[in-house]
Amino acid sequence: MRFNDFRAGQVLHCGPMKVEQADIVGFARAYDPQWFHTDPIRARSSRWHGLIASGWHTCAIAMRLICEGPLKDSESIGSPGLAYLKWPAPVRPGDELHLEAEVISARPSSSGRTGVLNWRWKLLNQSKEIVLELEATSLFELSGAREDV
Amino acid sequence: MRFNDFRAGQVLHCGPMKVEQADIVGFARAYDPQWFHTDPIRARSSRWHGLIASGWHTCAIAMRLICEGPLKDSESIGSPGLAYLKWPAPVRPGDELHLEAEVISARPSSSGRTGVLNWRWKLLNQSKEIVLELEATSLFELSGAREDV
Repeated sequence: MRFNDFRAGQVLHCGPMKVEQADIVGFARAYDPQWFHTDPIRARSSRWHGLIASGWHTCAIAMRLICEGPLKDSESIGSPGLAYLKWPAPVRPGDELHLEAEVISARPSSSGRTGVLNWRWKLLNQSKEIVLELEATSLFELSGAREDV
Repeated sequence: MRFNDFRAGQVLHCGPMKVEQADIVGFARAYDPQWFHTDPIRARSSRWHGLIASGWHTCAIAMRLICEGPLKDSESIGSPGLAYLKWPAPVRPGDELHLEAEVISARPSSSGRTGVLNWRWKLLNQSKEIVLELEATSLFELSGAREDV
C-alpha cells in the first residue's frame, strides 16, 4: 500500500501464518533462552502447560505479516516506537496467527515530507484469542527529502 | 538474580554485545524484510546513510542481554507487556550495545505467589546514544503455585 491509501478506521487483515515448534525454539535459543521457550518437557509441567513463544518472537511474526501485507511496496522508512504493547495470551507450537491492523490516524508531518501513521495491531490465534496487541507509529517518505526523520 | 534481590532504584548493567551486519540482514530477512534492513547498497544512499537493524531485532538483542544478566537463574515466567517502547536512534553494523535496566518497583502480587517487577530498559550504543527504551513488567514464580498467571 502507499501512504495515501491509509485511512482512519480502516481494518487491514494479514496472514495467517503457522508457528512451528522449531521456530519457537530457534528464535528463543538466539535471543530469549528461557526454559519455557526452549525446553518442551520442562514447560509441559509448568504453569504454561507446554512450550510458549518468546513475546519478542510473537512481535517479529506480526512484523513479518505487516511487511507482507500493508507495508508491501509502501514508502515505509521505519518507526519511532510504540505507545504500548500487551502479550495477553501465549503463542504455542502449531498456532495459526493472523493480524488485524486498525488505522487510528494517517497524516503528513508539518514539513509535508514524512507520512505519520498511527495504527493498532492485534495478532490473534486460531481460537480468536489476542496474543499480541500494540499501538505503533510508522513513518513514510513522501518526497525525495533525506533529512527529516 | 532472584526476585527478592530486585530493589526499586537499582540500575543493572548488561553487555556489551557487538552487532554484525550478517545478523542484521539475517534477522530482517526472516521477520522484517524492508530494504533498509536487508540491502546495504540501497540503504547507503537513503536518509539512513547505511543499513540499520530492525527495531524488533534491537528488542531481541536487549532480551538476550537481560537473559544473560538479571534474569539468569531467576524465577522469571514471562511478561504481560510494555508500558511504552521507543526506538530513538538506529542500530548499525558494528555497534557495541549495552543495556541499563532501572528497577521501578518490585512487589509480590496480592496472592503472594507471583513477583511483579516493573523496570525501564535503556539500550545504548558505543557513543552512549539510546537506541531502545522501554518500560516492561516481568513476572516471577514465588512458590509452587501453577495457576495464578
